[in-house]
Amino acid sequence: MTSVETLSAGKLRGLMTLADERGIFRMVAVDQRPPLFQALARHGDRTPEQVTYDEVAAVKTLLTRMLAPAASAILIDPVWTHPHALHQVPGRVGLLSTLEDHNFRLENGERWSYSIPGWSVAKIKRSGAAGVKVLAWHRPDLRDDTQEHQDAFVAGVGEACREQDIPFILELLTYPKPGEDVGGTEYARAKPHRVLESVRHYADERFGVDLLKLEFPADLKFTREFASGAFDGISRRPGYDLAEVKGYLADLSDITNVPWVLLSAGVGQLEFSLDLELACEAGASGFLAGRAVWLEALERYPDMAAVEARLAAASLPYLRRISAMAETATPWWDHRRYGGVAALQGAAPEWYREYPG
Amino acid sequence: MTSVETLSAGKLRGLMTLADERGIFRMVAVDQRPPLFQALARHGDRTPEQVTYDEVAAVKTLLTRMLAPAASAILIDPVWTHPHALHQVPGRVGLLSTLEDHNFRLENGERWSYSIPGWSVAKIKRSGAAGVKVLAWHRPDLRDDTQEHQDAFVAGVGEACREQDIPFILELLTYPKPGEDVGGTEYARAKPHRVLESVRHYADERFGVDLLKLEFPADLKFTREFASGAFDGISRRPGYDLAEVKGYLADLSDITNVPWVLLSAGVGQLEFSLDLELACEAGASGFLAGRAVWLEALERYPDMAAVEARLAAASLPYLRRISAMAETATPWWDHRRYGGVAALQGAAPEWYREYPG
Repeated sequence: MTSVETLSAGKLRGLMTLADERGIFRMVAVDQRPPLFQALARHGDRTPEQVTYDEVAAVKTLLTRMLAPAASAILIDPVWTHPHALHQVPGRVGLLSTLEDHNFRLENGERWSYSIPGWSVAKIKRSGAAGVKVLAWHRPDLRDDTQEHQDAFVAGVGEACREQDIPFILELLTYPKPGEDVGGTEYARAKPHRVLESVRHYADERFGVDLLKLEFPADLKFTREFASGAFDGISRRPGYDLAEVKGYLADLSDITNVPWVLLSAGVGQLEFSLDLELACEAGASGFLAGRAVWLEALERYPDMAAVEARLAAASLPYLRRISAMAETATPWWDHRRYGGVAALQGAAPEWYREYPG
Repeated sequence: MTSVETLSAGKLRGLMTLADERGIFRMVAVDQRPPLFQALARHGDRTPEQVTYDEVAAVKTLLTRMLAPAASAILIDPVWTHPHALHQVPGRVGLLSTLEDHNFRLENGERWSYSIPGWSVAKIKRSGAAGVKVLAWHRPDLRDDTQEHQDAFVAGVGEACREQDIPFILELLTYPKPGEDVGGTEYARAKPHRVLESVRHYADERFGVDLLKLEFPADLKFTREFASGAFDGISRRPGYDLAEVKGYLADLSDITNVPWVLLSAGVGQLEFSLDLELACEAGASGFLAGRAVWLEALERYPDMAAVEARLAAASLPYLRRISAMAETATPWWDHRRYGGVAALQGAAPEWYREYPG
């Protein structure tokens, strides 16, 4: 898409409230479910299933209270976060709500995504959130029935977001099939192709996506330059070098039909900083990060005062650091889809008469 | 209402985004229509009808661009402001949209209010605004048919705002009937009763109002202390003294069933400052002011560069001054209706299942 498009009112206002004044997204996610259950289970030697609702709600409320004020927007879930922490989100901070259930269906080793039962795009809009976030599991080698299911799921959300006039933030995550070694060089080698082809697939206009939330399209731990344990002390057999990774990022930027932000997917802080720097160089419009920001503070759990102290002493400074790094990101309205802030509006005076209600 | 009530999700989030982080409203209105047509008509010796759409749109866009960044929220109209200036409203600034048509119907000298044809609460919600503002003309001595019309109009908006789960900001304005001298002491004397009875009438829960936008319930120009021309050099026969005015404000505060903000209704800056100080002392939650902030800058019209310079040199400092004065206002969540920020949420974990979508 190279033509200048004007956005509908709700999508324009929604994107404005999620980004900062320069059009850059500095968003924090606290909608995680299994990763948070796992982090809390580690303390007390429990299974994730043994972690209680109240524990999760209390931790998410603390994360929201501590981190939302320093973000341009916060991503919450309707179950554990919303009913307790909505009033902890300052009005000036954008509100994103998650739609997909964390329980996916496994069919022949492939992941089928669903909405949280009883939650919907219409409810998200009505509840006052400025955007709908959906995670769709994907890889380019899916069975036809899986592909059809995922496409119908994503297209349905896109259509509902058009109806409700609310931004659709699509997160794409690749995943291993049974037998694949996620910690190995071959998996890391396959990642750029998988990420790029997933993005290419959902870049189709029929899916109605307004902002992509994307994985880094490689694994820096497997680059020649960082493979000797730069991030975690573990040496690995390299799968590519930095120049190649920059090439993948350039390809990614060419493919995206809408602005995109980087997700952190549980990588450590130093690695995510480097991912983000490279992504912003390549044209990303900021980040929507969770665990890279707050996971290490949860090592203090269940001492909530210590978690809070660590959030203040380490997570907030890290959030401010990556926010500063994102200053070189591309304002979303400067993406080639829009062509600058001045081109965002071009409605006729009578626009509101035909605008659906 | 002394019981603690929890707010629905959309109304809670909406009110949060309209207020600042302390729960105080520092809102600027640029939705004026006749007062703006009149101000622009003054230059060039024209009638208000001769002012063009493009002139009004350009001025409203300038006001939005200059003033919105310094406000907690801005009130716009869908016709002249929205299609040109939405992208000038920073995402961190709340967005309010106006519903009522500036053309009222005159029936036996009484004003019947209507929505802008083609605009609606559902459209306001869908367009991404955080609240619906409606001006209802009122006085306690209306004919039954007028009262019924106005009540049906207000109740209908309240019901639509409940359906859409968006805050309903009701503005009440009293007005003269034919033959009444708005500039005289008798009119000023009658104002407290008229304002108080209007508020009492619409404080009924059936109207579904979330925030009241109210006139100062007296006219300081007619107080004994300021009647010798304190604001405009004109001496007037006093109608009351300051102690009585404070009594009206205390009565107003007792009557309001929801938080309230002060409107400026075209009074000058010094007078509005004093109005605001007294209102905040009496329990107001801030202001939603228009002309007191920006009208005098329009004296430079049609020299738009001069208007902009005056907005920067005088209107913005005035906005910051009244914002500082509003620091003594009552956070909206401390109104007796809510009982503090901690009491705002009390939803069950399953709230989202029954929540309408």
